[in-house]
Amino acid sequence: MKLGSLKVSNKKDGELCVISRDLQWAVNVSSNFPNLLSALEDWENISNKLKIIYEELNNGKRSDQFRVEASHFHSAFPRTFLFADGSAFIQHIKLVRKARNAALPETLLTVPLMYQGECGQFLSPNEDIPQRDFSHGTDFEAEVGVILKETPMGISADEALDKIALIVLINDVSLRGLIPEELAAGFGFFQSKPASALSPFAVTPDELGESWKMGRVHLPLQVRLNREIFGRANAGEMHFHFGQLIAHAAKTRNLVAGTLIGSGTVANEDTSKGSSCLAEKRTLETIEKGKPETPFMKPGDRIEIWMEDLKGENLFGKIDQTVVAKN
Amino acid sequence: MKLGSLKVSNKKDGELCVISRDLQWAVNVSSNFPNLLSALEDWENISNKLKIIYEELNNGKRSDQFRVEASHFHSAFPRTFLFADGSAFIQHIKLVRKARNAALPETLLTVPLMYQGECGQFLSPNEDIPQRDFSHGTDFEAEVGVILKETPMGISADEALDKIALIVLINDVSLRGLIPEELAAGFGFFQSKPASALSPFAVTPDELGESWKMGRVHLPLQVRLNREIFGRANAGEMHFHFGQLIAHAAKTRNLVAGTLIGSGTVANEDTSKGSSCLAEKRTLETIEKGKPETPFMKPGDRIEIWMEDLKGENLFGKIDQTVVAKN
Repeated sequence: MKLGSLKVSNKKDGELCVISRDLQWAVNVSSNFPNLLSALEDWENISNKLKIIYEELNNGKRSDQFRVEASHFHSAFPRTFLFADGSAFIQHIKLVRKARNAALPETLLTVPLMYQGECGQFLSPNEDIPQRDFSHGTDFEAEVGVILKETPMGISADEALDKIALIVLINDVSLRGLIPEELAAGFGFFQSKPASALSPFAVTPDELGESWKMGRVHLPLQVRLNREIFGRANAGEMHFHFGQLIAHAAKTRNLVAGTLIGSGTVANEDTSKGSSCLAEKRTLETIEKGKPETPFMKPGDRIEIWMEDLKGENLFGKIDQTVVAKN
Repeated sequence: MKLGSLKVSNKKDGELCVISRDLQWAVNVSSNFPNLLSALEDWENISNKLKIIYEELNNGKRSDQFRVEASHFHSAFPRTFLFADGSAFIQHIKLVRKARNAALPETLLTVPLMYQGECGQFLSPNEDIPQRDFSHGTDFEAEVGVILKETPMGISADEALDKIALIVLINDVSLRGLIPEELAAGFGFFQSKPASALSPFAVTPDELGESWKMGRVHLPLQVRLNREIFGRANAGEMHFHFGQLIAHAAKTRNLVAGTLIGSGTVANEDTSKGSSCLAEKRTLETIEKGKPETPFMKPGDRIEIWMEDLKGENLFGKIDQTVVAKN
């Protein structure tokens, strides 16, 4: 099943829509199920009802269907109460720490890195990325994320996999110029992690077939910068799987329905697959050529992020954003 | 004006109530204004209407008033979309860093420390604090917080003061045993900052009269542990005022209506005022006697936090929580 949130000016959570498998058609179900965030609070019950509508839509049996226009859809949900962003790709951690001459954590392979990110106002998938100052070092980070049902404190990594309701893509916007000072002060990211965007559509794990296994999405994440291929790293190379990230997040708290868990920037050891953020590419350039050549994002730069299944069909819709100057 | 959120089983945001100045009486206004979080999204308009009800209530003119029972009220709001917790009391930073032999940040006096905390499920003011493991080092942190109207990115510290809608107290529960490893890994707090509790009632700044000035609450924060006075540190000793904390939080993002900004643990240089967390007291004991004597919280320990105005009247109601073992 695929779901999206229609933009509605006076509804901050949007209106819930069921989306056809081919992403061409939608049914607005908000008269019965107002929005995705509230649906997740009663997911067992509501998802079964939504699946019936989804099958009818795929079979051309919904007279209330309408054409999907990308610009009418917000992020899969426009806001939620917790975004716990992990960093499960070891190659990414190695490269970005090398970039800022920071040591690797001793627990690199045993304890996931995780921080709490802005989630009260996701950018929409086509919304401009505001840049107040070029020196902030605006970067994209292409990630996979999972959206949870209510999850109890102390859950195990195996049990946690059953709490995954939906899968999305994330552009975790990062301000590289602000990170060193923030991390040096000891409290982690805050200003360096402004509002992110999600893919327009969230997808149940069964839609991925065999590509969803062992708590990971085993498909390349497509990243294009200014219309040129930038990365096709496989998201299956996560060191920690999503169950482990969820269990880490739930060690000392219950996770509310609608919690978003991020994978961290998708990165492969095989660097021929490209990168999913500029910081990695700049580090690779430094290793190879002595200094970085690719600048951070400037006004006008465009980033596209999407994922295709094994048949080449777009799974989640596309994140397609452009940086704009903002005072 | 004083406001609270009545606990209602099927409403995660509770029901908005106007509370009398003496905290004895309430009027449920949720038929017109469902909850505090939504009221903050249209604050200029709604707060004026609520103020009329507040004056009527204080003057004994509301036939729909009912007696306040503390156990029926949740935290001032049960959940919100952003909790940006600062650390504006330099004495606190000095003592807790000394406790874990961590260096002071170079920007101690110029850039506020801030992290993003759990806010999707505040504990209620009388709710037990769950403890999965005594080695987690359960501690309380008594703080003052401000709740904001929508606040634009890039706002100045002076302008930011006008965005403060309400003031609350916070018990920012902290797990000291988990902090050193989390901070060493570089991403800041996550597991070490589980769900916090707020005071039952939120109060507009004008209710504090002359005690609210220069962006600070100039009153002692009352802290009692197991029925004994633990601290009475004055919350006016903030190095950074709330406008500065808000401006810091808003440097690279808009702040959504309902954003909660925390002061950090209230602490005074004059240590005869006591402490607002166990970590500080333990550090002072170590300095004086070579080792800490006061243990972290164990099941059965009770923490009370409240604040009185200059006449000795309770302003925000009381946070009154007990630690319980939880598997």
